[in-house]
Amino acid sequence: MIESILREIRIHRSFLITTHENPDGDAVGSSLALAGYLKRLGKDVTVHFCDPVPELYRFLPLADSVRQDLPDQDFDVCFVLDVGEFRRAGKLVNECRRIGMFINIDHHLTCDRFGTINYIDSAAAASGVLVYRLIKAAGHDIDYDTALALYTSIITDTGSFRYSNANPEAFAIAGELVATGINTWSIAEKLYESQPRQRLELLALALSTLSFSANGDCASITVTLDMYEKVGACAELTDGFVNYPRSIRGVEVAVFFREIQPHLFKVGFRSKGKIDVSSLAAAFGGGGHHNAAGCTLTGDLAEVRKQVFDHLETAL
Amino acid sequence: MIESILREIRIHRSFLITTHENPDGDAVGSSLALAGYLKRLGKDVTVHFCDPVPELYRFLPLADSVRQDLPDQDFDVCFVLDVGEFRRAGKLVNECRRIGMFINIDHHLTCDRFGTINYIDSAAAASGVLVYRLIKAAGHDIDYDTALALYTSIITDTGSFRYSNANPEAFAIAGELVATGINTWSIAEKLYESQPRQRLELLALALSTLSFSANGDCASITVTLDMYEKVGACAELTDGFVNYPRSIRGVEVAVFFREIQPHLFKVGFRSKGKIDVSSLAAAFGGGGHHNAAGCTLTGDLAEVRKQVFDHLETAL
Ligand SMILES: [Mn+2]
Ligand SMILES: [Mn+2]
Repeated sequence: MIESILREIRIHRSFLITTHENPDGDAVGSSLALAGYLKRLGKDVTVHFCDPVPELYRFLPLADSVRQDLPDQDFDVCFVLDVGEFRRAGKLVNECRRIGMFINIDHHLTCDRFGTINYIDSAAAASGVLVYRLIKAAGHDIDYDTALALYTSIITDTGSFRYSNANPEAFAIAGELVATGINTWSIAEKLYESQPRQRLELLALALSTLSFSANGDCASITVTLDMYEKVGACAELTDGFVNYPRSIRGVEVAVFFREIQPHLFKVGFRSKGKIDVSSLAAAFGGGGHHNAAGCTLTGDLAEVRKQVFDHLETAL
Repeated sequence: MIESILREIRIHRSFLITTHENPDGDAVGSSLALAGYLKRLGKDVTVHFCDPVPELYRFLPLADSVRQDLPDQDFDVCFVLDVGEFRRAGKLVNECRRIGMFINIDHHLTCDRFGTINYIDSAAAASGVLVYRLIKAAGHDIDYDTALALYTSIITDTGSFRYSNANPEAFAIAGELVATGINTWSIAEKLYESQPRQRLELLALALSTLSFSANGDCASITVTLDMYEKVGACAELTDGFVNYPRSIRGVEVAVFFREIQPHLFKVGFRSKGKIDVSSLAAAFGGGGHHNAAGCTLTGDLAEVRKQVFDHLETAL
């Protein structure tokens, strides 16, 4: 598998790299690491994301080269990284002049085999791990810039090495990346210590809504349009808020109610692992994974909360 | 150095293990890992801490065996782990009947050489790393229980592998520990996802006091006695609160005002690295390290805040 990918890299010249919408640290890190590697090999490389690189990851080398449009050219190969479903890939890719082949590199268990070559390994902690394996299998070194990108990919997808995908390989690679001279604290400072102050102001308001189900195994918080207005914040800043109610002792399911329009709420569910929240979300027409899922509900806050909590109490 | 410690272990029978007051994850983890190892060798082992093992770390094997008193016996060797200054060690150790020798194992740069043998290496991410090296140098395996304790020691002292002490050795060891079968998520769940709900309720109140210096490089939060009463919380729950204002973009120094009695405030300072907060604290008769320091001030909240912020504005 790796050998066939390395062969396509050797014999081709022009490469497009893309990843999923709303790119996370692994999407950005694995894409930029691969881009940097192909550039070092003298290849013609374009990185296309349908959404901009989030502020958080702009410190990575080559982040500025990511484009939302596509150049008017053919590509020999299109790498699609960290994308469970092809429809989540860079939306313009379908409109590209001509793409010789797709190479699908992913670590999602449910990944579609949409590529000409599919390098899918759900035992890998991150897509960045697969890019690391490629570069090493080619006999090349990991340079400082590549290490920055791959480290970001691994630390973000493992939740700072806390999730169960933080396996021996993830640690071994991280150690090797750190040995290139990258500074763990300066990366952490960028990823975790550079919040806009509005985010903490919004968090204070959100936490003040903390409430629990009768037996304490569900906790919820709410963010309303009023709150956004009060602190001058936008929806993006609520990323990760649902982890706060989840982090409480005894809580198995955390619920985050986020008002996106008057009478319209996004409802996010997070599980500590015992309960499959994808089925909870599915009951309301949503979906997701075992530990993270969501749906959209209409009504005023009290109605929406009652609907969700009534369902939770019977389902759990 | 390691060889001489292994020799003392070989030739002696009764061991006392102690660490610093208010033990953190490294203090508990390194002590229990060493205790388990010595027990496996058939030694007579007593673990004495002057404070109880915090709730958070009670999941570790042998945590229940830690005693605050001392048995009426002599010890051949007393291991003192993770203790920068001897006076911070288990307070009763001085009252012990007879201790043959002290072995000081630590990774603090400023550690006193109070032991008969001093194994001090400030390049080690945690005291647990030094215990790991001992066991490996003896040619022994790390078993599951030891791995739990050492992993806890490393993940807590590196701030979940974010601080600059998360070096290649720390990652290499963590990977090897995880390979023994310990579950990273189940440990993280215990360490980071088991907060008392009062802590988040108190955090909501504390964050609502978030305020900034004129240029935004200092941020502060406050917890008052009223707030404790409102949520039924105690002071211990505010551990780590000061990290929230520190995590804001542009903030170099975070200040945490914590009312401990009417008109008496503990003031904690945290730096992102550029500013030495130990000198800030020293100006008010306190002390600490470059990135973490504190002092105690009397007055009402407004007076105390003004005193601190006036000093900050001139000092920075
Ligand atoms: Mn991923
Ligand atoms: Mn330590």
